[in-house]
Amino acid sequence: MSTIGIVGGGQLGRMLTLAAVPLGFQVVVLDPTPNCPAAQVGAKQIEGSLRSKQALQELGKRADYITFEIEHLDTSALEAIGNKPIRPSLKTVRLIQDKFGQKEFLQKNGVKIARFKKTDTIEQAKKELANFGQIFLKTRHDAYDGRGNFSVKNIPQLEEAWKQLAGRRLYVEETIDFASELSIIVARDIRGSIKTYPLTETVHQRSICLETLTPARVEDTVRQRAEKLAVKTAETLEGAGVFGIEMFLDKNGEVLINEIAPRVHNSGHYTIETCSTSQFEQHIRAITGLPLGHTGLTSPSAVMINILGERNGSTHIKGLDKALRHPQTSVHLYGKSPTKIDRKMGHITATGKTLVQARRRARSARKEITI
Amino acid sequence: MSTIGIVGGGQLGRMLTLAAVPLGFQVVVLDPTPNCPAAQVGAKQIEGSLRSKQALQELGKRADYITFEIEHLDTSALEAIGNKPIRPSLKTVRLIQDKFGQKEFLQKNGVKIARFKKTDTIEQAKKELANFGQIFLKTRHDAYDGRGNFSVKNIPQLEEAWKQLAGRRLYVEETIDFASELSIIVARDIRGSIKTYPLTETVHQRSICLETLTPARVEDTVRQRAEKLAVKTAETLEGAGVFGIEMFLDKNGEVLINEIAPRVHNSGHYTIETCSTSQFEQHIRAITGLPLGHTGLTSPSAVMINILGERNGSTHIKGLDKALRHPQTSVHLYGKSPTKIDRKMGHITATGKTLVQARRRARSARKEITI
Repeated sequence: MSTIGIVGGGQLGRMLTLAAVPLGFQVVVLDPTPNCPAAQVGAKQIEGSLRSKQALQELGKRADYITFEIEHLDTSALEAIGNKPIRPSLKTVRLIQDKFGQKEFLQKNGVKIARFKKTDTIEQAKKELANFGQIFLKTRHDAYDGRGNFSVKNIPQLEEAWKQLAGRRLYVEETIDFASELSIIVARDIRGSIKTYPLTETVHQRSICLETLTPARVEDTVRQRAEKLAVKTAETLEGAGVFGIEMFLDKNGEVLINEIAPRVHNSGHYTIETCSTSQFEQHIRAITGLPLGHTGLTSPSAVMINILGERNGSTHIKGLDKALRHPQTSVHLYGKSPTKIDRKMGHITATGKTLVQARRRARSARKEITI
Repeated sequence: MSTIGIVGGGQLGRMLTLAAVPLGFQVVVLDPTPNCPAAQVGAKQIEGSLRSKQALQELGKRADYITFEIEHLDTSALEAIGNKPIRPSLKTVRLIQDKFGQKEFLQKNGVKIARFKKTDTIEQAKKELANFGQIFLKTRHDAYDGRGNFSVKNIPQLEEAWKQLAGRRLYVEETIDFASELSIIVARDIRGSIKTYPLTETVHQRSICLETLTPARVEDTVRQRAEKLAVKTAETLEGAGVFGIEMFLDKNGEVLINEIAPRVHNSGHYTIETCSTSQFEQHIRAITGLPLGHTGLTSPSAVMINILGERNGSTHIKGLDKALRHPQTSVHLYGKSPTKIDRKMGHITATGKTLVQARRRARSARKEITI
């Protein structure tokens, strides 16, 4: 029996574990929180910091394959894992965790992205603000779910953001006046063959993924363009596994890459209900050398809504009974406590004949739940 | 956070646990085997006999709702559980675990079944053999997967079977020359509303479920008759939960009830892949007072094949990589060791546009696996 080691045991590690065990794998996760979400579904847990060389070394000893649920890792500490395969790859993690470097790399490989510029001084940033009209001021490292990103429209906002991010390595990025945000989950097996899941529309609020709609409401030409771009992007990256490819559709119908996650992704949670092989099983298959599964939809439409924490305190879930009254609606809770404002506590997926129907179900169900 | 207690932590307890945890429940199982299949996916385990009053008492203390994955239980020991709700119900378990009493009850309630007769002496059995032509000699209690059942065509077979079952309470049942065996998974919530899953065809080998085909290949009139009969049968039984209703279709197009399981059932495993709410989630919803979920199919066809042990010894799974090459094919392993001949070690579900396609996939995948 082979063992999969996962760096991080949050909701993604939990859903990876739920997919791995029925395939006959054991799972061990490294996570600092006692009884982390993945441990609650049968993963063995090494309690420790994701940056602890000793803990990573232990993970490397106990596992046959290593993967991770987060890319903000200390890659030099990860080398303590030893000669076990780390998938997708350390090189890809290094590339992706430096968001500026990622963009330079994509640009070099001919992948369409928004314009961007390194800014070591506020004077440079001011120049780019004037140039682009509206920008994001971003940290090169450790930014996710909007943390480390500031939307900047004018000089006072820039000065405030600059102060907040003092001491970090920064860059600016043109703000795309997008028609919609899109995502594609791409999987690659160890032989290099690639499969894509359907194009998904994502809706963000305060830079956190709030809702996904599958299939995305775009024309066929846009869909084809997006799929081609996602595959091209994945091909530039090394390693077997699942990638979340986030894109912008601008108002001219152009598709640009926004960001890449070298892991299972929030925008692919809908695949649990609506694909023969979910993104989680797909990732397990990919990193262990198994063949990739089918990625087609089994329902015409699926809408996923994140259940974000609404207050700070210990978790009390209410309204599950009412939420489950809505047909074709599944609730996934992550077993986290405490709850915090905007913390990802669970998600809801509803399917339907149309996106309108699925969205109505998912939103109605979401309204019933307090957490 | 509520806790569900399950008497038994085998594959059914495991799949119940996998469905319960994402809904925010904790699970505790009673099972004698250390690190039983359910414990491997996050259930807490009380190691002990299913008949141990002390262990059942502890289960009752730790859980808010009690259910079971097997009906062959010591119902007087189960009373040690105390005042926690046991679902579906102890009365239903008592009724079902006496197969003869079950048949008397169904007959009394006007549910169509095969002819049967209590036999206290071999002379009585001989008379019924002459009367019915071919019979099953069955124990009233503790019979499942063909254990405790003998197909009898002549006097020497009867004498041998009588010897094997010496000391047990027995009855005989007419052998139905069936066109096919059918099954419907029925769910009832605590308010009494009932939902049925699609009609499924089951194929048995040596009295063990080998394969299921959904939807069953029968005419619409037969389907409607079977659904009506399954609902009628469920209505005669007390309690909230999922029931597996096994039926015969005879060569005149009549549908007869064969057996009832007051629990999730092997013939409903296909629902994991092809229904918005699987039988496992449905049972969890039903016993905890949540509303029932949708039971429609998301794929036109599904075929499930059990992975039965092929030898006796410690478990070594081979061929998973080849099995997963078949599209729309999922493998579920139960984490059991040792393997034994005909032990249920896992199952495969394949979906497809047609039953022929799904069956080809499932059978091809099954052939790749040795266990």
